[in-house]
Amino acid sequence: MSDKYGRVTVPTDVDMIEETKEIVKRWGADALRDCDGTNMPDELKSMPVKIYSTYYTTRKDNAWAEANPDEVQQMYLMTEFYTAMEEGELRIPVMKHLYDQQLKPNTIDDIKRWWEVVDRTTGAVVAPDLWSYEEETREVILAQADRYHDYTVSFLAFIIWDPVHMYNFITNSWENVEHQITFDVRQPKTQQHVIDKLKKWMVENPDTDVVRFTTFFHQFTLVFNEYAKEKYVDWFGYSASVSPFILEQFEREAGYRFRPEYIIDQGYHNNTNRVPSKEFKDFQRFQQREVAKLMKVLVDICHENGREAMMFLGDHWIGTEPFGEYFKEVGLDAVVGSVGNGTTLRLISDIPGVKYTEGRFLPYFFPDVFHEGGDPIREAKVNWVTARRAILRKPIDRIGYGGYLKLALQFPDFIQYIEEICDEFRLLYENVGGQTPYNHFTVGVLNSWGKLRSWGTHMVAHAIDYKQTYSYAGVLEALSGMPFDVAFISFDDVIENPSVLKKCSVLINAGDAYTAPSGGGYWLNPAVSCAVKEFVAEGGGLIGVGEPTACQNEGRYFALAGVLGVDKEVGFSLSSDKYNWETHSHFITEDSAEEIRFGEGMKNIYALPGTKILRSTGQDVQMAVHEFGKGRSVYISGIPYSFENSRMLYRAIFWAAGREQEMKRWYSDNFNVEVNYYPATGKYCVVNNTYEPQETVIYNGEGKAEAMSLKANDILWFEA
Amino acid sequence: MSDKYGRVTVPTDVDMIEETKEIVKRWGADALRDCDGTNMPDELKSMPVKIYSTYYTTRKDNAWAEANPDEVQQMYLMTEFYTAMEEGELRIPVMKHLYDQQLKPNTIDDIKRWWEVVDRTTGAVVAPDLWSYEEETREVILAQADRYHDYTVSFLAFIIWDPVHMYNFITNSWENVEHQITFDVRQPKTQQHVIDKLKKWMVENPDTDVVRFTTFFHQFTLVFNEYAKEKYVDWFGYSASVSPFILEQFEREAGYRFRPEYIIDQGYHNNTNRVPSKEFKDFQRFQQREVAKLMKVLVDICHENGREAMMFLGDHWIGTEPFGEYFKEVGLDAVVGSVGNGTTLRLISDIPGVKYTEGRFLPYFFPDVFHEGGDPIREAKVNWVTARRAILRKPIDRIGYGGYLKLALQFPDFIQYIEEICDEFRLLYENVGGQTPYNHFTVGVLNSWGKLRSWGTHMVAHAIDYKQTYSYAGVLEALSGMPFDVAFISFDDVIENPSVLKKCSVLINAGDAYTAPSGGGYWLNPAVSCAVKEFVAEGGGLIGVGEPTACQNEGRYFALAGVLGVDKEVGFSLSSDKYNWETHSHFITEDSAEEIRFGEGMKNIYALPGTKILRSTGQDVQMAVHEFGKGRSVYISGIPYSFENSRMLYRAIFWAAGREQEMKRWYSDNFNVEVNYYPATGKYCVVNNTYEPQETVIYNGEGKAEAMSLKANDILWFEA
Repeated sequence: MSDKYGRVTVPTDVDMIEETKEIVKRWGADALRDCDGTNMPDELKSMPVKIYSTYYTTRKDNAWAEANPDEVQQMYLMTEFYTAMEEGELRIPVMKHLYDQQLKPNTIDDIKRWWEVVDRTTGAVVAPDLWSYEEETREVILAQADRYHDYTVSFLAFIIWDPVHMYNFITNSWENVEHQITFDVRQPKTQQHVIDKLKKWMVENPDTDVVRFTTFFHQFTLVFNEYAKEKYVDWFGYSASVSPFILEQFEREAGYRFRPEYIIDQGYHNNTNRVPSKEFKDFQRFQQREVAKLMKVLVDICHENGREAMMFLGDHWIGTEPFGEYFKEVGLDAVVGSVGNGTTLRLISDIPGVKYTEGRFLPYFFPDVFHEGGDPIREAKVNWVTARRAILRKPIDRIGYGGYLKLALQFPDFIQYIEEICDEFRLLYENVGGQTPYNHFTVGVLNSWGKLRSWGTHMVAHAIDYKQTYSYAGVLEALSGMPFDVAFISFDDVIENPSVLKKCSVLINAGDAYTAPSGGGYWLNPAVSCAVKEFVAEGGGLIGVGEPTACQNEGRYFALAGVLGVDKEVGFSLSSDKYNWETHSHFITEDSAEEIRFGEGMKNIYALPGTKILRSTGQDVQMAVHEFGKGRSVYISGIPYSFENSRMLYRAIFWAAGREQEMKRWYSDNFNVEVNYYPATGKYCVVNNTYEPQETVIYNGEGKAEAMSLKANDILWFEA
Repeated sequence: MSDKYGRVTVPTDVDMIEETKEIVKRWGADALRDCDGTNMPDELKSMPVKIYSTYYTTRKDNAWAEANPDEVQQMYLMTEFYTAMEEGELRIPVMKHLYDQQLKPNTIDDIKRWWEVVDRTTGAVVAPDLWSYEEETREVILAQADRYHDYTVSFLAFIIWDPVHMYNFITNSWENVEHQITFDVRQPKTQQHVIDKLKKWMVENPDTDVVRFTTFFHQFTLVFNEYAKEKYVDWFGYSASVSPFILEQFEREAGYRFRPEYIIDQGYHNNTNRVPSKEFKDFQRFQQREVAKLMKVLVDICHENGREAMMFLGDHWIGTEPFGEYFKEVGLDAVVGSVGNGTTLRLISDIPGVKYTEGRFLPYFFPDVFHEGGDPIREAKVNWVTARRAILRKPIDRIGYGGYLKLALQFPDFIQYIEEICDEFRLLYENVGGQTPYNHFTVGVLNSWGKLRSWGTHMVAHAIDYKQTYSYAGVLEALSGMPFDVAFISFDDVIENPSVLKKCSVLINAGDAYTAPSGGGYWLNPAVSCAVKEFVAEGGGLIGVGEPTACQNEGRYFALAGVLGVDKEVGFSLSSDKYNWETHSHFITEDSAEEIRFGEGMKNIYALPGTKILRSTGQDVQMAVHEFGKGRSVYISGIPYSFENSRMLYRAIFWAAGREQEMKRWYSDNFNVEVNYYPATGKYCVVNNTYEPQETVIYNGEGKAEAMSLKANDILWFEA
């Protein structure tokens, strides 16, 4: 029965009692959940399944929020740039282009201490006595602005409408629903209130098995404009995790004065593409520790009451940092998160220190997909097949769905397809056997964030592609389903201990110049550049994507141009003749079409003498290989995700590692098909990632070949 | 007869006596010249024409050079990067990849003083006692290099084969010709020798009317590799203008120690794309003054002997700086230069402080064009028609040709076509009347070089297009034939006196980020940014091309994003939603095709709210307009030269100036045709820039329209 029961969570609602029972049976579900907007019917609480209850730590309690306006959650915001067009007074309307139903300037705390007016033309802070704030117009007034200088105001505002509640409200066109205010659980009165409330809740909800925290204390940065449209989103953003109470605590500990600019960061709000400042990293570490401490208090209450504590990876997840150093001390039982693709699957399944992880698959049972003419099966299939590559490397322990069950029930084929997925997942899970699958070797991803942003680099708003990121995100998506140990290593790790690189056979540095993924100024630190050079010189592989190691200095744009064998012409070396333009065939491109999709690609890359160009477009090198000492490097301008590009990266990794002779082990000639081997169970699977049948030749662990046919989306299991 | 005689120079040779007489008659030539590789026949010296003699100041005297090896011209060079792959000794072969017949390391002067070993990983100079030089292997030996650091050696070398002589030698496959050594006329023994020799030459060459200096003292940077192929070329490069003698003089004056790095500049050799350092500008100013002083000595000798002194703009022209402050004091009679296009024409014809200028047109009478199957007429026509636009704005005073006359004579149609050009030029010259043509207003080109590089910005090797420059060079090429006063203004000019901008109606800043044309760090200086903002706010126009005002800082990539209304997404503001993507029709694009050629264009440019996008490709804005105060700005991603793009820029200039109502004065509806008006003579011309007939409607100074037909390449003259 193991393949017909368990590891599946189903959403329900008060008007779905019989239907839920039927679905539980068909899908083999062993857990039921409520959602934002649905409720758990009492009749189902006695079923032999676990009951999840969504628990809102920071909202759904306006009475409290309204009674304690000083402890409503705050966030740092920056106004637009205002140019002083005239000599004299400059007025800056702080709320212009913000949504006044979401945010309200905090004038309760000392604005002269917590707000900051910055002359962005010079970078200088305007002395607090040179400006004032006019409450009625919500304007900051600079008495004497320097003409033609640009000014901004960084200020604190209260979050008077929870951004996720607002998002759900708008997406689902809710009516007559009160706007939920976010309160700051870190502050003393609210903290006690929330603790007491959770204890009380335990008593009132004896049937709940799993408290699904949605989430803990601080919302990722999500700001709406005057038209209630998204204005700013950073899934990793800490700007809504602040309050004078917290900042003063931080100051006492850090020993220096906090500046709004540590969050505002020139108006970029420390998004993950910014190379983080020391002060921001200090603050982030402080927040992690404090958040973990308080999480533990709530988790302990669950445990004391015999319940499991599950965290939703999203919404108010800031500071929890599942890959950080404090998370595992919290004692959470589980993490559940939304699965957008392979990368986001691993973002959940790789989390250490919890008993189990659960993936919430797409589509949500929401009217945007489940309407007449909608095609929920297609969406489910793409989601499942895309994520499956990653599940086969590191499975989540459970799968589940969310939304309105009644919407899904109107699509019987969909219900049937999910039944098949549930069975496929349970079989897969059993065959993986709870152990690490066979990995050829370790691939390191080197960037400014390292472990903390495992699988999370190149993300802005969760799994949404951006023009400036998809050519890099493809690297992680490909890796998420590849038989390698993937180690996320930060430049700080390397500075602290260069031998951290030794576990890797290949390092990847991918990103645009000066961004956190690429590294910017870190590359000027010999402790970083020489460590990576040593790594390659001694036989390691380096794969650079986009503008790897970029930081214009001392004659080079790529700090490791000498290793990569390519550099970028930014105009300064135009006078140097460049003769190396011929392209060559190579092991890496053997499975690639003549025309490779480099995504955004890169302009003005040229090859140094001795470098072998694999592809170029005009005078723009797109791919090249080079040797350095005993090691090898590969430059690729961009790798948007596709099966073909995934294969190209796979080949590049083996070549860079100098192990191309070993590639054809647990391997499929057809790049639409992948092979995974599980030493723990002695099983291996052959999986068709496409929606069409495929023919291939697969190779076992000894390199023995066997022809094979697969049906669309097929996964076949064999004994090794 | 004025349209049949004068203003034309013809090359001759000893075996071309009768032919030369015939050509002089047909082309109406009034001057004869010899060239590198030809000689003036005595029989022609008595003709009623001026006799030009090419005079080599710095070469064609190996006896002297060999007797004075210490005064052979030197240059600064940098080796490749060498990585210390092992702990301990690192050997750097200084001449590797250089041509040993061109260059020889200078070990006569103290290498510990004049050479520099730089750790390019840290930027630190290696102390002189930590390295040595091994003469026999030509290697610099670092006793104890830091492992994995990159090192370079900056060193002085003697130029033992004049680069231009070498170029001509190779291009013309000369045989049995001695390699001419370049000597340094600035040094005391050689200076006296050259002065004495010129005096003697005057006596020996009584028939010469014009001494055509080719050129003065320092060759532009031109280095060949081990295969005698061009390795590095910078037409503006000062690296071959150095010697310890000169540098010590500079040090005494500047009051600080000279570093090789002031020339080497991270290995970029201060090319014109680098924002110049203070030290380089100091040195350049010093060189200009000293070069001018010594030029004057030679020019005075010519004048004392009743001859004219003409300078060739090229070869050893470094330090003469015709647009610099010392040039006009030299008293030169004329400058002659090679005309590649409109821009290079103005580079000659705009030179102040000489009695006349002469353009040497293409093609050279060299076998690369004048061979069986060659099409010299086509080349001559393109060259003439391209340059004519600029001649019509600011004529050179003479035209001429160079090379082997006997080659040209084998193409009778070519001889005929040049005859027509000569007549057309003389008529044109007369109608212009020696006065400034009608200009609508002044357009300023704002960059790091200003007046000194008038028409020379975006050039690398004279008129050769580079992938990274043609999209900007098109701006100058368009301007070279437009009815505007063009003012070249440097950031230093603006810092010294912001009111220098007041004479302009429109400013143009064009170039890649961080280059000298764009400005890089200058844009962080409020004295620059605020002056330009004020200029626009008070009604001026700003046209930014490519990455104008770019210098990532304080939340902006374009320092003047607020003025331009666009900025570049470099990854830091991905979190900010961008809603302005709609494109609009506009006055500026009225004559443009749907698909505009932006050349290299630009990626990741986005529009700020309130900006009107005129063209975009996907999510890359290519053209947009914005208003700021009383002024206007236009952003264009690139403007490679074409008649259509020239018209687009013309419209952009009028719109930016807020004078679009005045545009249809001396104007042609068909952008292949241009109109120029000359108040001095009351004449105007209508000129067809294409090789096909054209129909158009032209507008006179009152805006009165008239339909007109023009033959291919036609130029029609009218009384206003």
